[in-house]
Amino acid sequence: MEPPRVKVAVVGASGYTGQELLRLLVVHPGVELVAVTSRSEAGRRLETVFPRLRGAPGASGLAFIEPTVEAIAASGAAAAFLALPHGLAAEFASPLLRHGLRVIDLSADFRLRDAAVYREFYGHEHPAPSLLAESVYGLPEIHGERIASASLVASPGCYPTSILVPLVPLLERGLVDPASISIASLSGASGAGKKADASLLFAEVNESLRAYGAPKHRHLSEIEQELSLAVGDTVRVSFVPHLMPVTAGIVTTIFCNACDPDTVSERVAEAYAETYAGRPFVRIRGEGAFADTKHVVRTNFVDVGWSVDRRTGRLLISSAEDNLGKGAGGQAVQSFNLMFGLPETAGLLQF
Amino acid sequence: MEPPRVKVAVVGASGYTGQELLRLLVVHPGVELVAVTSRSEAGRRLETVFPRLRGAPGASGLAFIEPTVEAIAASGAAAAFLALPHGLAAEFASPLLRHGLRVIDLSADFRLRDAAVYREFYGHEHPAPSLLAESVYGLPEIHGERIASASLVASPGCYPTSILVPLVPLLERGLVDPASISIASLSGASGAGKKADASLLFAEVNESLRAYGAPKHRHLSEIEQELSLAVGDTVRVSFVPHLMPVTAGIVTTIFCNACDPDTVSERVAEAYAETYAGRPFVRIRGEGAFADTKHVVRTNFVDVGWSVDRRTGRLLISSAEDNLGKGAGGQAVQSFNLMFGLPETAGLLQF
Amino acid sequence: MEPPRVKVAVVGASGYTGQELLRLLVVHPGVELVAVTSRSEAGRRLETVFPRLRGAPGASGLAFIEPTVEAIAASGAAAAFLALPHGLAAEFASPLLRHGLRVIDLSADFRLRDAAVYREFYGHEHPAPSLLAESVYGLPEIHGERIASASLVASPGCYPTSILVPLVPLLERGLVDPASISIASLSGASGAGKKADASLLFAEVNESLRAYGAPKHRHLSEIEQELSLAVGDTVRVSFVPHLMPVTAGIVTTIFCNACDPDTVSERVAEAYAETYAGRPFVRIRGEGAFADTKHVVRTNFVDVGWSVDRRTGRLLISSAEDNLGKGAGGQAVQSFNLMFGLPETAGLLQF
Amino acid sequence: MEPPRVKVAVVGASGYTGQELLRLLVVHPGVELVAVTSRSEAGRRLETVFPRLRGAPGASGLAFIEPTVEAIAASGAAAAFLALPHGLAAEFASPLLRHGLRVIDLSADFRLRDAAVYREFYGHEHPAPSLLAESVYGLPEIHGERIASASLVASPGCYPTSILVPLVPLLERGLVDPASISIASLSGASGAGKKADASLLFAEVNESLRAYGAPKHRHLSEIEQELSLAVGDTVRVSFVPHLMPVTAGIVTTIFCNACDPDTVSERVAEAYAETYAGRPFVRIRGEGAFADTKHVVRTNFVDVGWSVDRRTGRLLISSAEDNLGKGAGGQAVQSFNLMFGLPETAGLLQF
Repeated sequence: MEPPRVKVAVVGASGYTGQELLRLLVVHPGVELVAVTSRSEAGRRLETVFPRLRGAPGASGLAFIEPTVEAIAASGAAAAFLALPHGLAAEFASPLLRHGLRVIDLSADFRLRDAAVYREFYGHEHPAPSLLAESVYGLPEIHGERIASASLVASPGCYPTSILVPLVPLLERGLVDPASISIASLSGASGAGKKADASLLFAEVNESLRAYGAPKHRHLSEIEQELSLAVGDTVRVSFVPHLMPVTAGIVTTIFCNACDPDTVSERVAEAYAETYAGRPFVRIRGEGAFADTKHVVRTNFVDVGWSVDRRTGRLLISSAEDNLGKGAGGQAVQSFNLMFGLPETAGLLQF
Repeated sequence: MEPPRVKVAVVGASGYTGQELLRLLVVHPGVELVAVTSRSEAGRRLETVFPRLRGAPGASGLAFIEPTVEAIAASGAAAAFLALPHGLAAEFASPLLRHGLRVIDLSADFRLRDAAVYREFYGHEHPAPSLLAESVYGLPEIHGERIASASLVASPGCYPTSILVPLVPLLERGLVDPASISIASLSGASGAGKKADASLLFAEVNESLRAYGAPKHRHLSEIEQELSLAVGDTVRVSFVPHLMPVTAGIVTTIFCNACDPDTVSERVAEAYAETYAGRPFVRIRGEGAFADTKHVVRTNFVDVGWSVDRRTGRLLISSAEDNLGKGAGGQAVQSFNLMFGLPETAGLLQF
Repeated sequence: MEPPRVKVAVVGASGYTGQELLRLLVVHPGVELVAVTSRSEAGRRLETVFPRLRGAPGASGLAFIEPTVEAIAASGAAAAFLALPHGLAAEFASPLLRHGLRVIDLSADFRLRDAAVYREFYGHEHPAPSLLAESVYGLPEIHGERIASASLVASPGCYPTSILVPLVPLLERGLVDPASISIASLSGASGAGKKADASLLFAEVNESLRAYGAPKHRHLSEIEQELSLAVGDTVRVSFVPHLMPVTAGIVTTIFCNACDPDTVSERVAEAYAETYAGRPFVRIRGEGAFADTKHVVRTNFVDVGWSVDRRTGRLLISSAEDNLGKGAGGQAVQSFNLMFGLPETAGLLQF
Repeated sequence: MEPPRVKVAVVGASGYTGQELLRLLVVHPGVELVAVTSRSEAGRRLETVFPRLRGAPGASGLAFIEPTVEAIAASGAAAAFLALPHGLAAEFASPLLRHGLRVIDLSADFRLRDAAVYREFYGHEHPAPSLLAESVYGLPEIHGERIASASLVASPGCYPTSILVPLVPLLERGLVDPASISIASLSGASGAGKKADASLLFAEVNESLRAYGAPKHRHLSEIEQELSLAVGDTVRVSFVPHLMPVTAGIVTTIFCNACDPDTVSERVAEAYAETYAGRPFVRIRGEGAFADTKHVVRTNFVDVGWSVDRRTGRLLISSAEDNLGKGAGGQAVQSFNLMFGLPETAGLLQF
């Protein structure tokens, strides 16, 4: 006999992150989808709004409802995924937690430990600072045990995931100079969200390569927070994101000074082996390998490779993930699996 | 009355660089195209091989011929563009120079001052080391006067152009630390050439983002040569190229430590103004601007912007060009214009 | 001495069609651009709004102005290109004509002879029916002589150009059955215009192939009008446009029954030779050739090929053009050249 | 307790079709992958050749072997998928059948009833004509019962699937004129296979729209065979395939004359409801809907919509599928499921 499924709500399901969550949850063997909300799509059937999902077992019969705490609680959901804009997510998290739901928030609202940093990077006061101490940064490879018992998980941003997975083990072991880190990340256009903005039209993004958002992209705040935790001291890095003409995928290239260029490659290999042995979603490609988004899009994997630039003493790291998968919806489902005692890979082994 | 046109040959015209040269030369007001060679296409009409060129004044009636020095010399050409693989280009350059032609070589054969560096990066002995002293590195914004009187111009690689134009003026003035430079460059697929290689198929490159070739891409040799000249000392940089799903265009992001972060932005602006005032093909976009390949593809422009990362003290530089235009065929035509006393912009003002 | 340049205004220059017009006009040897209007961009410099145009001789110093008839007339323009939405274009055409300007309208307002057909397809009364008799349908290969002397030219839609150029000569000669015509056209995303519409975002159009707008796309009205003129009787065709993940380009495939399958190929070749000999922008590729948008984008050419399906007796026709070039801005400039006695190819020979 | 898994071999697994089969089979709950062959990759691990598959339960430990009948039989496989070029597939099918394996062939070798038609379209004698009577055309929605008991299934081509699913029910019921059918199909570049051909390079296919292969593409033979079976008489259609700049996906637009334009829409809806009720992979989108490849790529669905062009009396049909999914690997797995008594959707419900 199958174990009972966890009843799940997705709040704010009409954007790209919500869409990815639904894509995963409608075939997740441990999930019963009981509520999906969207202000703009309320009343319409899931299959009408997302024709791709027609025929999915978990989508059948569901319609979008208005996003109210009462309706979500009344659905019987034990867990709620919040795929809402920052600021708004906090408004739902508090009452849903009071109703006894466990919350996985995909916005930035609960990622930062320090409300002052939130204000600096997001431009407004934190909407629920009292919850910051309680929330867990939802990177399962780093904070897996705390996620398992958390009521409120703040799922990481897409860029941070691609940067923290390869860097944290190296900083924890002192293999590279924390003051020397420069990061170029390239992201597909879905990372900008499904908003009607002329600069994101096909004819504007296609055949275009461009940096944006530097030197102080919002994700820098959580990147530096987690890197600083790994080092035990304040870390500042340079981060330049780029908008790329692909639908999905992030590839990140990290330049940093190796503390000992002669041995760094072996020690990096060891660090990854120690940290990620038994972690199903980190694939270490080894020295000389460059990660390719083509091998990770629509999966929950993050691939990591590196090479050593002996002429300059730098370590060059390459990682790839799906910005909507491991960088958003997939990773949130991975945390959900840990929170509800399901296999970490449940519903996530697609290739 | 129109001045007489310069008779021109294009040697090795069937690849992407040759194709771009032809695209420009068939409507160049100062050029009469008298010979185009291709081993594989000999005997076929230009318009048959490149349907795009049909209807161009300068293409009418021309057919590809076998690439022999005799035939090229017999065509009456005063100038020859070599769009040949490295190694092979040198075999044509020497005899064509002896026949009195002036040569613009788009291969790597004459870009390096030092035959030992050529051997290190290209894996074989230099085929004509005696010509190295004579050749001029064909970056008109840096070596314009020497190009004007040169018999042999070595047109730069695509990546180096996007890196040297923004960096040389800053290194000449000591505005950034030469030991701190890390470079991420992103290039369209035409940069890999028109070779039947399964890894370059549409279905392999599309929806893919990936680094390659680091830490010792061949272009690094000429990048470091020219940066070292600017500094007056050996410079080593980290360079990671990436293959992108666009047909054309390079965007380069440079991370480097500003010597004085507080004043660097003004001094960068001054350096560019001094160096590039009156240079028609460098467009300085200013602080806070990121260059976009969309604005430069199919032109001979290189766009440059920058920002200052005050938290880390780094200068972040952004440049964009067309890898086949300013990065190859367009720049070669620009050198040609200088060599033959034509306006620098002749045949190059397309938008 | 150079002849004086024609003073030109572009009204509504901030969309894709306006942008393409500007791209051509800033380097047109017979044009002095004296006014460019845009409600949304008024006051901003041309080079700021379109960074691509920076460095163009004709763009230097120009700024967008508010679109008022008085300002346009005061600029001294002898010709005005209208790149406005349908309905609005008519409001400018009448007073500009009264001010003595010659008008090339790129909207649909003056393409149809019959105001009732306009109402049927565009859903509102024609805003200036009295001008319909005066306007000339701006397809130079078909109506070249009338264009030369016209005050008001209605430049054709993008789809119609790709359909009329190959079909009109065949229908005029009775080579195919007018009742048998089915047309599949595929267009790049710029054809939908630069409007902030979520269905046109990169992440929606990329990796997507889809028909739309059938069976009664607005362009059908002018297609059938001109085909009916060619036959001398009412012609009805089936037309299915498709949205494609390219920035620019239209390829059209036409299925029709050959009146005599055995001889149709030769007679098609003759028809095209007779009609298009000496027409610089129609390139007949011959039997067995399929037109490719790659060879025509950013040019003013339309390429045409065909094959005969002897098993079914059908003629299969293939044409390609740039939807913004020969399908919009380029063709409008071609009409302008004819109207002002300039060479038909002036400013249009780019490859 | 789980039921035992069927042991499966994939023969010729290094191309795009083989890759898609592996992608599905490594997570198929009813499959144990016991042999994968590839001449070029023999000896290499599956995860090395296809980095995307690393971490898949069914891929772990597997390496490519040489394609010999003995080795495949020795693997204990009960079923073999053949992803080989036509001509070669027949050489494996006969001996594998004799060894008692059931064979699902994805080549064209066993699709045609008539060896003469095979010779006409494929240019050589049929390599195993005696097997033609035995093989079943593997379109489960049409020949599902016969597939269930077949030893040899000839999985359909990608284009035919997108054409037969919408047309067969209409022809069976006489709703459209079989002599009036014209078909435009648009396919992603993976349909051309993973062969090193310069015309399929990214820089050749990107930003290009073009027809090819008409009027006698090889798939026409099986299209007409199955349409003729539906009508009970010889049917000839016009078919123009197009190469599109997407990795995967086919959209097909069919023009045909409705026998009774006034009632055709209702009768089409009824025909689809009768034929496809309970068929999990055909999604009828209804009148006025156009199918979009974006909703079907990487799934086994085929979406179908239509509209009626009352002005011409034509029915316009739109279908979409993944050329590698429902058009190749997915459909083959669907037949496999039927052959081995597994749920039809086993391993195929991905979204």
